[in-house]
Amino acid sequence: MALTTPRTSPGTMELLPRRQMVFQRMLDTIRRGFERYGFVPVETPVFEIADVLLSKSGGETEKQVYFVQSTGSLEQGHKPDLALRFDLTVPLARYVAEHEADLAFPFRRYQIQRVYRGERSQKARYREFYQCDIDVIGKDTLALAYDAEMPAVIHTLFSELNVGPFRIHFNNRKILLGLFEGLGITEADQRMAVLRQVDRLEKISLEEVRSALMGEGLGLTEGVANRILEVVGTHGTAAAVLGFLSALKDRPDVNPIFRQGVEELGQVVAALRAFKVPETHWSINLGIARGLDYYTGTVYETFLTDHPGMGSVCSGGRYDNLASQYTKSRLPGVGISIGLTRLFYVLSEAGLLKDGPSTVQVLVTQLDPTLLADYLAIAAELRAAGVNTEIQLEPAKIARQFKYADRAGIRYAVVMGLDEQAEDLVTVKDLVTGEQTRIPRGDVVARLAALVG
Amino acid sequence: MALTTPRTSPGTMELLPRRQMVFQRMLDTIRRGFERYGFVPVETPVFEIADVLLSKSGGETEKQVYFVQSTGSLEQGHKPDLALRFDLTVPLARYVAEHEADLAFPFRRYQIQRVYRGERSQKARYREFYQCDIDVIGKDTLALAYDAEMPAVIHTLFSELNVGPFRIHFNNRKILLGLFEGLGITEADQRMAVLRQVDRLEKISLEEVRSALMGEGLGLTEGVANRILEVVGTHGTAAAVLGFLSALKDRPDVNPIFRQGVEELGQVVAALRAFKVPETHWSINLGIARGLDYYTGTVYETFLTDHPGMGSVCSGGRYDNLASQYTKSRLPGVGISIGLTRLFYVLSEAGLLKDGPSTVQVLVTQLDPTLLADYLAIAAELRAAGVNTEIQLEPAKIARQFKYADRAGIRYAVVMGLDEQAEDLVTVKDLVTGEQTRIPRGDVVARLAALVG
Repeated sequence: MALTTPRTSPGTMELLPRRQMVFQRMLDTIRRGFERYGFVPVETPVFEIADVLLSKSGGETEKQVYFVQSTGSLEQGHKPDLALRFDLTVPLARYVAEHEADLAFPFRRYQIQRVYRGERSQKARYREFYQCDIDVIGKDTLALAYDAEMPAVIHTLFSELNVGPFRIHFNNRKILLGLFEGLGITEADQRMAVLRQVDRLEKISLEEVRSALMGEGLGLTEGVANRILEVVGTHGTAAAVLGFLSALKDRPDVNPIFRQGVEELGQVVAALRAFKVPETHWSINLGIARGLDYYTGTVYETFLTDHPGMGSVCSGGRYDNLASQYTKSRLPGVGISIGLTRLFYVLSEAGLLKDGPSTVQVLVTQLDPTLLADYLAIAAELRAAGVNTEIQLEPAKIARQFKYADRAGIRYAVVMGLDEQAEDLVTVKDLVTGEQTRIPRGDVVARLAALVG
Repeated sequence: MALTTPRTSPGTMELLPRRQMVFQRMLDTIRRGFERYGFVPVETPVFEIADVLLSKSGGETEKQVYFVQSTGSLEQGHKPDLALRFDLTVPLARYVAEHEADLAFPFRRYQIQRVYRGERSQKARYREFYQCDIDVIGKDTLALAYDAEMPAVIHTLFSELNVGPFRIHFNNRKILLGLFEGLGITEADQRMAVLRQVDRLEKISLEEVRSALMGEGLGLTEGVANRILEVVGTHGTAAAVLGFLSALKDRPDVNPIFRQGVEELGQVVAALRAFKVPETHWSINLGIARGLDYYTGTVYETFLTDHPGMGSVCSGGRYDNLASQYTKSRLPGVGISIGLTRLFYVLSEAGLLKDGPSTVQVLVTQLDPTLLADYLAIAAELRAAGVNTEIQLEPAKIARQFKYADRAGIRYAVVMGLDEQAEDLVTVKDLVTGEQTRIPRGDVVARLAALVG
């Protein structure tokens, strides 16, 4: 038979086991963090009925969807009726609408699954990637204090992920929308175009944004551009920014939406302090707009201080109504999302994710084939005591077995030869320090359980 | 906008959060068990390049494949070039062949992911379901003792899954193949047809199988049918069955493959005893054939004693060469697989999987909106201490908040009203016992950490 070259589709991430362990630890940390904050797990099928998935989507998303059909459907020339999820938000909307009667609100769910985008393949752009999402969904209303819980979760997670210093930037879109409306920018397309320019502030200078706002296409007056940049360019401590906004807000000509945005922002800041999220880790950033029209209030982005070029590693926001395409119920919510595959890729490239010790803690080596029953018994005892144990059943030189364990990140090796067996002893070798200790056979479980514990 | 009815594709399992927690606990138990036995994690993309995935497959599998293509590919009228994996074995073969140079052998991997089959939808048949697999892959050779490790893993897992009594049945296919060959049943199709009849022994009587073997299509003589049934119908303790086989094996006319099968079976039994797998939990079952031609030696099935109709809940076996379609390297292996989605479904239907306590351990209730900052601070402290805590930020009657917690499976509620706050006290309520205790505000973390710990 001619051989087929084994290969994976471009745009997918497949890891060797030791890297997979690093990835898995990040997933575990995130899940533990989500559970710590009282979010409950949801998993949805990887594919949705295409009509249901795409009932609300705009053109851009639909262009990137992966459609799915069975052999039978394909052979009969049907159009595919299934599609892979492209995010976890539409499946959440479908889930909440479908199971509404069985859920208690506010509904707090976490979901950690892969999503799929039929993007053109390029470096660090994935067609399959993990999203780690939480959302709190209210029925009719959702208290603003939930908006402060999101940065608290981000703070806990990114501290535990151990990826260096980070800072959560947040804003309230009502401030921008109210500002624009007050300045006569009321048409939806124009508003989105202005938002897009504001969003570029992280990458280009204030002057360049000013030119763009006044340039062809938008054509804002210098006065209007300056009013916008005065707000979105404001930096400083939360107290200073809130002070600046309060002063603006109290001007009689100010738009009521702007005023509401400022009030909400102030309340979120107060709640954030009550949640004890240290101010070293968050800032008000009036330049955060988030592209999506979806968001209606608080919006978040998170930046790794040492890797500004990475862009936001955890984003989200408040929305007025989750599932208007599926239900008449009004379901306001707030949520955040971590794109873990890309984060893992970028951190790996930056050398920030070293291989840790293996999940395998002990290797029971094979020195003499006639002692097989002893090796099996030792492995069985270690496993029963909760020690993750591999046993080498294939005959090989002992030096090669040590080398294997070392390369695999297994720290401890158990060795027993005929002479040791005769004396009822075993040797425990620490492959990191090189230290070897002979101990009574009967002590091996207690010793190793203590070492790995 | 007209509403779209929110619904999922038939053949998928989607759970409410409390059921999802039960499922998640089973997944965690299985993963922990796999890691305890020194298996390392692998995840592969949900889709493979179709030509790579299907390079070896027979007709039946291909009929059930889900093909995947992006919007662009679909619009251009291309044939799909991607397909969802239908098991974890072909992706493993592709993975090992692709990364062969970077892997150390014997390579022990676990993989817990969903697989996809475009089956006709019917009760308890899933199009998307979890498989939980382990395999040990050797390079050129793989010691037989690894075959005894699989039942040891099954024993640990199913004991910890707490699904009632179970028994692992195993056999060695060489015994059947050698037996058939010795009886002149050498043609592949005929051999498979005989194996299929033998496989029915769990469901129909010995007499019926005898008729089938002698009936149209197969047309074996009564003598040959009897010789087959004498072997596959043999029951008893491992010692008795091995004794019976040894007596047969020593007959001079016996086929060498049969003899080898008996020897291997004896060695696996000895290793199984050294692994201390209790004999109450396993049997030699000479009727186990496993449909797949893939297996070449030891084969396993696992039955829940109280649910014989469920069929095998964990199966697998030894194979000579994992990845002959991808590499010239010879890669013998042994592995097992649990189809968790179906197992979960059947156990649920049988009422064996009760909802457990929620992953959320404490609900901080809201009695007075003016105390919001106190509630946030209490939640922050509990979470920092590792207690999974939800906070109720939406105003609601306290009785409704208790009802919510009770229904959600949250055991403890923290209550603080204005009078309690004035005295620096909080109330901790146990929703299972109904007990309420007032304790100093400063003790709340220690008290709850102890209660949930």
